[in-house]
Amino acid sequence: MNINRFTFESAELAGLSIADAVERLNTFDVDDAALILPTLSLERAIGILEQPELHNAAEIVAGMDPGHAIRMLNGMANDRATDLFQEFNETVRAQLIAGLDAKIRASIQKLMHYPPDTAGSLMTTEFVSVPSNWTVGATLAHIRDVERSRETVYAIYVLDAKDRALRHVVTLRRLITGEADASILSVAQKDAPITVSPLTDQEEVARLIRRHDMLAIPVVDDSLHILGIVTVDDVIDAMIAENTEDAHKFGGMESLGKPYMQIGFGSMIRKRAGWLAALFLGEMLTASAMQYYEMELEKAIVLTLFIPLIMSSGGNSGSQATSLLIRGLALHEVRLGDWWRVAIRELPTGMTLGTILGLIGITRIAIWHYAGFYDYGEHWVLIAITVGLALVGIVTFGSFSGSMLPFILQRIGFDPASASAPFVATLVDVTGLIIYFSVAMFVLGGTLL
Amino acid sequence: MNINRFTFESAELAGLSIADAVERLNTFDVDDAALILPTLSLERAIGILEQPELHNAAEIVAGMDPGHAIRMLNGMANDRATDLFQEFNETVRAQLIAGLDAKIRASIQKLMHYPPDTAGSLMTTEFVSVPSNWTVGATLAHIRDVERSRETVYAIYVLDAKDRALRHVVTLRRLITGEADASILSVAQKDAPITVSPLTDQEEVARLIRRHDMLAIPVVDDSLHILGIVTVDDVIDAMIAENTEDAHKFGGMESLGKPYMQIGFGSMIRKRAGWLAALFLGEMLTASAMQYYEMELEKAIVLTLFIPLIMSSGGNSGSQATSLLIRGLALHEVRLGDWWRVAIRELPTGMTLGTILGLIGITRIAIWHYAGFYDYGEHWVLIAITVGLALVGIVTFGSFSGSMLPFILQRIGFDPASASAPFVATLVDVTGLIIYFSVAMFVLGGTLL
Repeated sequence: MNINRFTFESAELAGLSIADAVERLNTFDVDDAALILPTLSLERAIGILEQPELHNAAEIVAGMDPGHAIRMLNGMANDRATDLFQEFNETVRAQLIAGLDAKIRASIQKLMHYPPDTAGSLMTTEFVSVPSNWTVGATLAHIRDVERSRETVYAIYVLDAKDRALRHVVTLRRLITGEADASILSVAQKDAPITVSPLTDQEEVARLIRRHDMLAIPVVDDSLHILGIVTVDDVIDAMIAENTEDAHKFGGMESLGKPYMQIGFGSMIRKRAGWLAALFLGEMLTASAMQYYEMELEKAIVLTLFIPLIMSSGGNSGSQATSLLIRGLALHEVRLGDWWRVAIRELPTGMTLGTILGLIGITRIAIWHYAGFYDYGEHWVLIAITVGLALVGIVTFGSFSGSMLPFILQRIGFDPASASAPFVATLVDVTGLIIYFSVAMFVLGGTLL
Repeated sequence: MNINRFTFESAELAGLSIADAVERLNTFDVDDAALILPTLSLERAIGILEQPELHNAAEIVAGMDPGHAIRMLNGMANDRATDLFQEFNETVRAQLIAGLDAKIRASIQKLMHYPPDTAGSLMTTEFVSVPSNWTVGATLAHIRDVERSRETVYAIYVLDAKDRALRHVVTLRRLITGEADASILSVAQKDAPITVSPLTDQEEVARLIRRHDMLAIPVVDDSLHILGIVTVDDVIDAMIAENTEDAHKFGGMESLGKPYMQIGFGSMIRKRAGWLAALFLGEMLTASAMQYYEMELEKAIVLTLFIPLIMSSGGNSGSQATSLLIRGLALHEVRLGDWWRVAIRELPTGMTLGTILGLIGITRIAIWHYAGFYDYGEHWVLIAITVGLALVGIVTFGSFSGSMLPFILQRIGFDPASASAPFVATLVDVTGLIIYFSVAMFVLGGTLL
């Protein structure tokens, strides 16, 4: 970027809203962004770095003059600063962490210990807490003092005056309705606080925040000391990341973990090739199954015509059932113990759906026969019956096994969302072939076969 | 439920947290729930009815004595009450709406006009607004008065003193830091308020709330008068509903719109049969394609063995690409105009993935041949090459068309999320067969064919 362009962009960025400034910075390369951010006011630069929508934030900070980088990291919400530290390489991390204010350094070092996707990794340590012997007025005065340095002040945590354990939650909206000299307990929520542990999975954190319509949830240790809070905006970001991950998995691949346009060619291949190859190896069983029925194929080549049609119907019905149950389990609408209730719903559902497809298939063959589009030979009625019955069997099997797969995965300790449409299709394909040829041998035995 | 059980359950419900009470009520049938809710305190009954997690809320309210029902509807957040009115049948709706307080009736009638999934249908009219000539102190006093009747008081909307158009937003956290006799404008946000229109899609509302880390977003008309606000908890609920819908669609069906266990057998069949039959009709083209290559099939029955394997690989790579691009478009990481950038990424990606699968396929045939698992005849090398090349072609075509499908859908005005794994597989299957047989005729022409 030349100097004129640089000055122009710097002035532009100063005038935009934070969200628009982030979008604009995303169009720059990392080196330019690292040079331009320090020309903005510190408050604005920090505001921009705090947005999860900013691409390559860690690389940008690492590319700055360390003095600027440290000033910004000192000012950022420490959950976000921790995210950046997780991404720095060893050298940059060591250099920058040494420059932080002692208190901030300690928080960040603590936050870095929690595994990703847990409450601990999402939480911030910047919350407001007061002892239970304070008054409403003292609490309000305290909030006015610290407001600028706290991620949220809408929930105030009331701690036991002696052991500092979390006792109550006060919302700011209730606090301002209180009398200034009344006890803080006069405006506290009656129910015991809802809390999570630092190792609680982010999906469960999101579920609790949503279930109780909270703006933040406290993260506590075994003796109810608050370690931090997870705020609703972080939960929304985590939910979106989780949904993207689940969508990628359902599509039959490892989640990218980065925007589509940001990921390198090598990573893209790695994320997709693994599952594709695994599915390919599984699907090889179809070649073995076909080999097994080679005699029948040679006798009645007409049977091969319907193989793709019949197999895909099994996969499609399985994909439907799997997507239904993955969501049902994720939303806790269906529990692990409900598997048999689901099974006795999916069996008749699959049979009905299979019958519908079977009738369409029989009609198709009849029309082609009478219209002379294809000559299925003298046994065309038996062939049509074979196709129809096979569809009933395969769609029933597809719906049943597609619905059971997420339960099985959850039961053996995997995420039910690891079940993917291609995975189900592969599972169903081999069995589909066996069902088709078994039906054929039964119906066509003595005539064609 | 007998009278003892009834009294017991009523006492139980009174003691649980709202969220737990909802879960318990979900295990009752509608008639019991309609009898038991009015035995709780009005505040608690309203709290329970306001939770979107409560099943059959409209049926429960409709089943109550109308006096109770009206008292609860009067007390509920009016966006939620509107949702219930949308679900009532004509008779119940007419009877209950007549009983409401005039002001609430007017709001609900207005809210009922907005189409589902828009800002208008999600918004509540219970927000706090003050004229721009008020002081901080007067605003705080006003909030203390109205706090109980407002869904959120964390954002305060400052209206032009003359034309009542929205001019500024003040957050409660900033408000409490202001001097009591200073103008409300002294604590207002500098940027112009971010607003939506009542017809803005809920997905866009969610994106804006998330992008700007807001707790509520104002919904305004053309002259900037506030019609209502959408709060972050409603957005989260809408996001979850939308994700479930997208997951169902990607699984190849119409979204259920209800929890799995709640939906009747007939609706379940309808939601699944439509797409299944449409895909089946599309897939029928594979039978026609096979018919076209029947001569080749008769000459080289060995080619049929690999049909399911090769076709499924095309579908799987297509499903991966589609899931990537659906999410990319939904998160605005990729724009409609980026289609060609995606195309020139997916072509080499597909070729590389196809080459990997092709090499596995060739190795498989070589092992089977040398180990004597199957006799592919004297031309086994040519057969292996056919399978390998066909895989390169089909996986490339699958990745390419799977990635373009969401763009095409968005371009012609559909939701890109309507693209499903089974849909892509069906699209790819017919072309896959044609690619396979074309490669076979090229490689095996003069020998096997």
